Amino acid sequence: MVEQQKIDIPELKDLTIDNITENVNLINSQAPDARLKYVLERLVSHLHDFARETRLSTQEWHAGIEFLTAVGKKCTDVRQEFILLSDTLGLSLLVDSIDHPKPPASTEGTVLGPYHTHDAPHHDSLGHSISGDPEGEPLLCLCTVKTTTGKPISNAKIDIWETDSKGSYDVQYETYSGDNPDGRAVLRSDDEGVFWFKAIVPVPYKIPDDGPVGKMLRQLGRHPWRPSHMHFMFEKEGYDHLITALYLRGDPYETSDAVFGVKESLIIDLGTVTPEQAKKYDVKEGAKLLTYDFVLVTDEETKNLRDEEAKKAMKALGRDNMAIIAGLPVPDVD
Amino acid sequence: MVEQQKIDIPELKDLTIDNITENVNLINSQAPDARLKYVLERLVSHLHDFARETRLSTQEWHAGIEFLTAVGKKCTDVRQEFILLSDTLGLSLLVDSIDHPKPPASTEGTVLGPYHTHDAPHHDSLGHSISGDPEGEPLLCLCTVKTTTGKPISNAKIDIWETDSKGSYDVQYETYSGDNPDGRAVLRSDDEGVFWFKAIVPVPYKIPDDGPVGKMLRQLGRHPWRPSHMHFMFEKEGYDHLITALYLRGDPYETSDAVFGVKESLIIDLGTVTPEQAKKYDVKEGAKLLTYDFVLVTDEETKNLRDEEAKKAMKALGRDNMAIIAGLPVPDVD
Repeated sequence: MVEQQKIDIPELKDLTIDNITENVNLINSQAPDARLKYVLERLVSHLHDFARETRLSTQEWHAGIEFLTAVGKKCTDVRQEFILLSDTLGLSLLVDSIDHPKPPASTEGTVLGPYHTHDAPHHDSLGHSISGDPEGEPLLCLCTVKTTTGKPISNAKIDIWETDSKGSYDVQYETYSGDNPDGRAVLRSDDEGVFWFKAIVPVPYKIPDDGPVGKMLRQLGRHPWRPSHMHFMFEKEGYDHLITALYLRGDPYETSDAVFGVKESLIIDLGTVTPEQAKKYDVKEGAKLLTYDFVLVTDEETKNLRDEEAKKAMKALGRDNMAIIAGLPVPDVD
Repeated sequence: MVEQQKIDIPELKDLTIDNITENVNLINSQAPDARLKYVLERLVSHLHDFARETRLSTQEWHAGIEFLTAVGKKCTDVRQEFILLSDTLGLSLLVDSIDHPKPPASTEGTVLGPYHTHDAPHHDSLGHSISGDPEGEPLLCLCTVKTTTGKPISNAKIDIWETDSKGSYDVQYETYSGDNPDGRAVLRSDDEGVFWFKAIVPVPYKIPDDGPVGKMLRQLGRHPWRPSHMHFMFEKEGYDHLITALYLRGDPYETSDAVFGVKESLIIDLGTVTPEQAKKYDVKEGAKLLTYDFVLVTDEETKNLRDEEAKKAMKALGRDNMAIIAGLPVPDVD
């Protein structure tokens, strides 16, 4: 078997700063999966170029190894420090933008963040309060979800989550067990594509900065704050999964979100509950009001747009030998 | 304070696939340390280019997050899975080559690997056996350490480590406590630059492949084997720290080392102990013999070479605005 391997494997030797990359890519080219082969080829090439362009020192490399190890060690069931790292380096926003391209008329996506859970209560009827925090400022939320041609989408699954008035998600409390969710709900839109609920006015909060990512931000002279926002996630068969959030205009961190999630089209002005609304929705007149019309894109349209943008990107790279399979570039084996 | 930050921080908004990188680099440009700023700028640019060039999907991104988390979780005091990952992607060899450039007449460096410890016994005299494995094939090692002009280097600290005859390092056994090292020693060269010791003939071994890195290798169709070798590390004031290893010619994995450590100049042929040597060193006539003359480079020469190569690399990149400080490129603030 050893002799067999000696014959089959591309030969390496005398590796230098200049030829190590092609040699690593050569040995990785044995991967049976063409997509994995391409992803690894790009990963290794960028990793090595990074080291060559910075002339990375052994000491810095070691600091990097220790940093990544600490990030891994910080991860628990309710804390994903690697996602936080990805968020703070802008990678999460970038990947979401690539994977979920949006035509002009639709609602833009943004970062999921590390605090989505599967513990939220599911409500079959509308009008529930998702927050049990008596300190929060009451907020009535009246929303719709429609197609790009303005048709209501009924029975869409809508996952909503926000912090309490102190800026903490339920899972950040030591008393959290999974059985006592707060600031979360899963709703269903009605036949008119309407969904409404009661919540509290979102407040700015710090991403968890007591771990290695927080330390990195401090070394970079960056703050750990996110502007006030509420998360929304939409699922409906035939439509592209939408992960998004709405941001309050005028927030002090509106233009410096630690995780790069803010988009102009997702910034909203809160309104005020009218006497009629107060009566209809059983809330106080003059209370804060959030309204938003979400627009979902069909799977078909998303798929076409994804393919189109992938082809455009490969053309811009001068990679004419790529096939696009399920939206992903794969070296064309023909 | 919040208002202060609003003013000081570069404004971000409406982040797209195309402008996210410059925006992340803009916010990171607040870093007080110029070198850190440059390293992060290159890191973020390559990370984002990687995602754009692969059109990385959310699913693949998530697989990456889970992989890195598993790598972190696998790390213990005696197992560094991130170093193993760096080794198997050729990064460790590359960083060593950049940080420790070698002029033609000197001994080349190679990967440290994850099994160096600080538990090896220190011997003040020469001739000790570093291996207690009765199954190993005895090997007499007669070496010297000299300058590039052929002058002996006395009292150099030499750290040596190898596996047992089964291909396992001491720390890989559950019975290992730190107090029972085997296959290791720290020696000092004598006035003629000579150091000699008894060991066993190195055998090929698998890097630990029961973790996420092993899984990655299998997905890539790669084997986890390293060719037979013995590690050496040299420290002597005024000379560049040398981390290297000697490899046995003809090993089945000579040209496909899982961690890319083999270099032509480090491949050796074992000899045979002569009757005179057998008598002088108290070993069996006809036993295996390893001889090697190591050559260290002065700190001064290494520093000059490192600066020179860094300047050359920056010129090749078209980055004319870089100063080289302690061998490392830093944006020139003038």
